[in-house]
Amino acid sequence: MSEKNIPYKTYLTEDEMPRAWYNLRADMKVKPAPLLNPGTGAPMKAAELENVFCKELVRQELDDETAYFEIPQEIRDFYKMYRPSPLVRAYCLEEKLKTPAKIYYKFEGSNTSGSHKLNSAIAQAYYAKQQGLAGVTTETGAGQWGTALSMACAYLGLDCRVYMVKCSYEQKPFRREVMKVYGANVTPSPSETTQVGKKILAEFPGTTGSLGCAISEAVEAASSREGYRYVLGSVLNQVLLHQSVIGLEAKAALDKYGVKPDIVIGCAGGGSNLGGLIAPFMGEKLRGEADYRIVAVEPASCPSLTRGKFAYDFCDTGRVCPLSKMYTLGSSFIPSADHAGGLRFHGMSATLSQLYHDGYMEAVSVKQTDVFEAAEEFARVEGILPAPESGHAILAAMNEAKKCTEAGEEKVILFGLTGTGYFDLVAYEKFHNGEMVNFVPTDEDIERSLAQLPRV
Amino acid sequence: MSEKNIPYKTYLTEDEMPRAWYNLRADMKVKPAPLLNPGTGAPMKAAELENVFCKELVRQELDDETAYFEIPQEIRDFYKMYRPSPLVRAYCLEEKLKTPAKIYYKFEGSNTSGSHKLNSAIAQAYYAKQQGLAGVTTETGAGQWGTALSMACAYLGLDCRVYMVKCSYEQKPFRREVMKVYGANVTPSPSETTQVGKKILAEFPGTTGSLGCAISEAVEAASSREGYRYVLGSVLNQVLLHQSVIGLEAKAALDKYGVKPDIVIGCAGGGSNLGGLIAPFMGEKLRGEADYRIVAVEPASCPSLTRGKFAYDFCDTGRVCPLSKMYTLGSSFIPSADHAGGLRFHGMSATLSQLYHDGYMEAVSVKQTDVFEAAEEFARVEGILPAPESGHAILAAMNEAKKCTEAGEEKVILFGLTGTGYFDLVAYEKFHNGEMVNFVPTDEDIERSLAQLPRV
Repeated sequence: MSEKNIPYKTYLTEDEMPRAWYNLRADMKVKPAPLLNPGTGAPMKAAELENVFCKELVRQELDDETAYFEIPQEIRDFYKMYRPSPLVRAYCLEEKLKTPAKIYYKFEGSNTSGSHKLNSAIAQAYYAKQQGLAGVTTETGAGQWGTALSMACAYLGLDCRVYMVKCSYEQKPFRREVMKVYGANVTPSPSETTQVGKKILAEFPGTTGSLGCAISEAVEAASSREGYRYVLGSVLNQVLLHQSVIGLEAKAALDKYGVKPDIVIGCAGGGSNLGGLIAPFMGEKLRGEADYRIVAVEPASCPSLTRGKFAYDFCDTGRVCPLSKMYTLGSSFIPSADHAGGLRFHGMSATLSQLYHDGYMEAVSVKQTDVFEAAEEFARVEGILPAPESGHAILAAMNEAKKCTEAGEEKVILFGLTGTGYFDLVAYEKFHNGEMVNFVPTDEDIERSLAQLPRV
Repeated sequence: MSEKNIPYKTYLTEDEMPRAWYNLRADMKVKPAPLLNPGTGAPMKAAELENVFCKELVRQELDDETAYFEIPQEIRDFYKMYRPSPLVRAYCLEEKLKTPAKIYYKFEGSNTSGSHKLNSAIAQAYYAKQQGLAGVTTETGAGQWGTALSMACAYLGLDCRVYMVKCSYEQKPFRREVMKVYGANVTPSPSETTQVGKKILAEFPGTTGSLGCAISEAVEAASSREGYRYVLGSVLNQVLLHQSVIGLEAKAALDKYGVKPDIVIGCAGGGSNLGGLIAPFMGEKLRGEADYRIVAVEPASCPSLTRGKFAYDFCDTGRVCPLSKMYTLGSSFIPSADHAGGLRFHGMSATLSQLYHDGYMEAVSVKQTDVFEAAEEFARVEGILPAPESGHAILAAMNEAKKCTEAGEEKVILFGLTGTGYFDLVAYEKFHNGEMVNFVPTDEDIERSLAQLPRV
């Protein structure tokens, strides 16, 4: 098909939408290392994980062999409410950059939660419902994941209890209100509703909370209530599995035109979006069927892949969760409060960490003022106001496109536009007012937190 | 085609998107009354209007005969960035309501401006650019129109000066920041940048502004600057013309399945969305080719169609704009500050007013707490967080669906979902906290402002 016939936006039909999620791990020769029990150092057993997570999700978490998991009909119906997401050909951006590169992006922001998080939220809520549970608990920082989970639970009639980091609860009242529209119970963390919350409040009366603390409260709330389980929006294998719907749709749309990307780019915090977007492409690469450059983009202020260590570490600052082998800056690493661009997790998905370690993926880190500049340039030509997280991928894609201009190369670039920036306008305002600074941790900062890695 | 084969969402292909806007007035036997010069009482001539508006837009404004206006290629390209908008079959809402009715909605909110306003903003900006102008001025209240215009101007490289009602500028900083992302010059009104602004500030030093004042400033800013014109986001015939793209797409999508709506429902403030959505359906009705019930939904706090008078009136509170014959509550009517649901204009599009007067349309008014309740119920089952404006149409559609349940009738209902409520969460919060009240003007309130109608 000739170049000109590729539309601005491609939507798959309902019949073309994926019927199964793809499990990247099935094609990995070296599997991601197992989760370890932090007490015994032994690999976590399904029965142990089932105290915290839903049964079926534990099965998905531990299964490194099954390539495809059928998407249940009820989840596929929910997907039809906001999917397929469009695969967009960035004609306007190409023209602005005067690049010979062909740029595509998969836009996951056109649902009310404003990001790709909903893809896994509905799956996790569905399995909780299927198990006959009354509800789920989770933590949320800025609120994207909490909003997505609230929407999924409202749809299924499941109780949803969100522990929201107190400073976000107070400073981001709009996210909190969206969750309330969807009937969620939102508690500022730390709170008096859990033992761990009470303990922290007694010790630090004025604290505005942290994600680590909110995780601990959400886990306690799940295990102390009959019929509740804890759910998590990133990092886990199961989340990458559900998010594979992004990459599967993107690839199906490109295949229609016989287009193969040379470079696939995604922002990376815990890895949920990147792992989902690259899944089918990485699969072909692992099976030796095709080659792609795959690039993770992370903030310079939280550079787990580019400056972290590949080692077993806690997934939470509270050091109660299982140990995961991953690229980590140390579980005590907290990016500066000046960092407004999301992607704040100290570690990285074990699957992506293993792939990066084995040379299947590249990683770059970028500064946040550059990210906001790219996001704004993108907004003006492509219309969409990007989430700062997505801005990381935009910047990297624009940099690759500029290289193509210099080299006169017609490369095909695909990147993930994970979400919208409607709830990040305080950060955009800072950027406009010249008040945004670039925090980059020193080597000493990172060494200090890495010194506390658990001994396994 | 069997019922089951209608997908949740229907997107037209690029080839199926409308190539021309449809001008409803061409099929009206009784044309809308002409705009009058407020000084002389004579119909406004093109040359007079061209001092304020772009030439081509004046031509569109005054043309009651031409049925189709070709959409210029550059506008069609811009439309491809965020259109076609989906026609959604509300399966989940139908199930929730247990109604035999078939409910469809046309969702205009999946672009960054968050509403249908962008459809006319790009058209108006395009003709300004084509005329060789340097920029455009406008006013904005809550900011939907200002955001849409900023996006369109950023795309075309046109200067955009927005006078934003001061209390909104201060209370809705996020809307203001979105406009700044798109490079607009946003001034809180009243300001020192215009004569009229200075005068008002001298008279009322602490004023937080009004839409009427912002219009006066924007009009002055356009006429006092070389190469600028004023643009407006609703009420005008030209705006309804551009917005016909909503109805044309909706009808084309329904035609694919051989579905004809029994009832078409839209919220109505100035009439831009309603006039656009109903255009092709009303056209068939006017030509006697088909019959549809067409329903305008307005807030009980600003009930121009249901409780206003069909008479010539000023379009602005400042009483400087031309007179329009329309359903009006009087140009001095200002809905209570308690009213959070948008649709605050005291009058109504002259075209829609004439159609309503001639019996082609029905109108209902609804209370805002009922609107927010319906909006929230909708959000929980259909996923999308609606703008309060859209909530009016949702409520009316749900009421019609409930009637179908009672009567056991399988009617087809189409309504317009104009936008998203991301920037209306203060209102949702009020609703959750039980602080929202229903303001309904008394007969005396309305008589008082109607007593000031101009004598023509």
